[in-house]
Amino acid sequence: MSTNPLPQPTAAAVIIGNEILSGRTVEGNLNYLAKKLGAKGIHLAEARLIEDDEAMIMATLNELRRRYDYVFTSGGIGPTHDDITALAVAKTFGVELRPDPRAVAILTAHYPPGGLTPARAKMTEIPVGAELIPNPVSKAPGFSLGNVHVMAGVPDIFRAMVDELLPNLAGGAVTLAQTITCAIGESFIAAELAAIQKDFPDVQMGSYPFYRPPSQTGSGSSGDGSSSSSPFGTALVLRSTDAARLDQARDALGASLTAQKIPFTVEPRT
Amino acid sequence: MSTNPLPQPTAAAVIIGNEILSGRTVEGNLNYLAKKLGAKGIHLAEARLIEDDEAMIMATLNELRRRYDYVFTSGGIGPTHDDITALAVAKTFGVELRPDPRAVAILTAHYPPGGLTPARAKMTEIPVGAELIPNPVSKAPGFSLGNVHVMAGVPDIFRAMVDELLPNLAGGAVTLAQTITCAIGESFIAAELAAIQKDFPDVQMGSYPFYRPPSQTGSGSSGDGSSSSSPFGTALVLRSTDAARLDQARDALGASLTAQKIPFTVEPRT
Repeated sequence: MSTNPLPQPTAAAVIIGNEILSGRTVEGNLNYLAKKLGAKGIHLAEARLIEDDEAMIMATLNELRRRYDYVFTSGGIGPTHDDITALAVAKTFGVELRPDPRAVAILTAHYPPGGLTPARAKMTEIPVGAELIPNPVSKAPGFSLGNVHVMAGVPDIFRAMVDELLPNLAGGAVTLAQTITCAIGESFIAAELAAIQKDFPDVQMGSYPFYRPPSQTGSGSSGDGSSSSSPFGTALVLRSTDAARLDQARDALGASLTAQKIPFTVEPRT
Repeated sequence: MSTNPLPQPTAAAVIIGNEILSGRTVEGNLNYLAKKLGAKGIHLAEARLIEDDEAMIMATLNELRRRYDYVFTSGGIGPTHDDITALAVAKTFGVELRPDPRAVAILTAHYPPGGLTPARAKMTEIPVGAELIPNPVSKAPGFSLGNVHVMAGVPDIFRAMVDELLPNLAGGAVTLAQTITCAIGESFIAAELAAIQKDFPDVQMGSYPFYRPPSQTGSGSSGDGSSSSSPFGTALVLRSTDAARLDQARDALGASLTAQKIPFTVEPRT
């Protein structure tokens, strides 16, 4: 009855920067990357947030690049002394970090004459053997070495680099998502959802409670007897690479909720 | 000349949930935890975002609970079949997951008579030997087992649990931060900052560029000749547990910037 999910490459994200772990900066790149990888059929299986620490960067990259098809990093490739990602990546792969003629040409053309100062020249140092990732925002490039893709931490630049990079990577089957929203707390649906999950082991089913203050509760969300005035609701999210199986799971869950007299709405599939 | 940083306990955060790695949900707990740990003098050294996968949760917790003084988790302790964190933690420690009389009493008192349904009763199942973490929002508790502290994923509940938990944990020396803001791109300050960093190896120095559209640029931010019309600015952040050393580093950096005719403002210390 069940089918295996269609194949997807796997990936990990590594967000590098003291400022995120100290709480000074709110992490702002992961959600963009996750959505773009999802649309490409690449499964983001894990993310790590680590400090600007060479040993930690090297250990993390060495572990993840062997475990996953792709590793994407964010942060630490600017002009100041605390930007140590490029050197750490070079050491991870056992190659030299050297001024890259392509990067030198890009930044020489970008700055006014004489503007490629020693600090800015630091941004032309790329591990030997890497391919550049273009930076349409501020020109200093990211790079790809093996299956590790190194991008900037500034969100506008990170996003632009992701958009430059992803068309060049092999994707896989796209995971489709079908959301069913119930105006009722998730504990009232748990049994139905668990039963359907058993029938569809190949469809991932998640239950995400939410809270809407009473003034925002729609008049159509009457709920059942035990929750008619409850501001709690639940989003049931079904995910699969197989559209037909996803439709079957949606219909089975809908029939179960209807039989239990639990009102629900089906969102458009994404 | 340098002094060692004052002692701080170390910590890792583990954010558990498919919905974050799929991009459906924006991670919303880490920054709150980071700030609260910082105020307590606990060093958040690493964070991991993983899926609702028993083997992954167990492997991650076993690695991190040995490496750090504290591990804080978020997510996966609700009433539905995809909430597997409590069972995974029990297996990690090799103890049973059982209905906890304290949790049963809390939820029995909270719901109307007969309201402790089988799904809700799942939230009373706690690893044997754990202490409960109170949940002032929706009552179903988190728990602490060894140095692993297990909390809910819903942000309102996670934050309330953090506030309940932290007063009971031993903290350390609080890291103080001093921010110096320059209306100039970070490459113009890189050399000065690197020189000061060498004199103050015990003070962590970070450089964080930012971009302000021209209409928001203050009239006092004239910059130097090469950047007088630049919308780019840089926040230099100095961090140390030692207030005296932090003051010395701030003064040294200020003197260096003044000598280079780079305008700057000193933010209040936090």
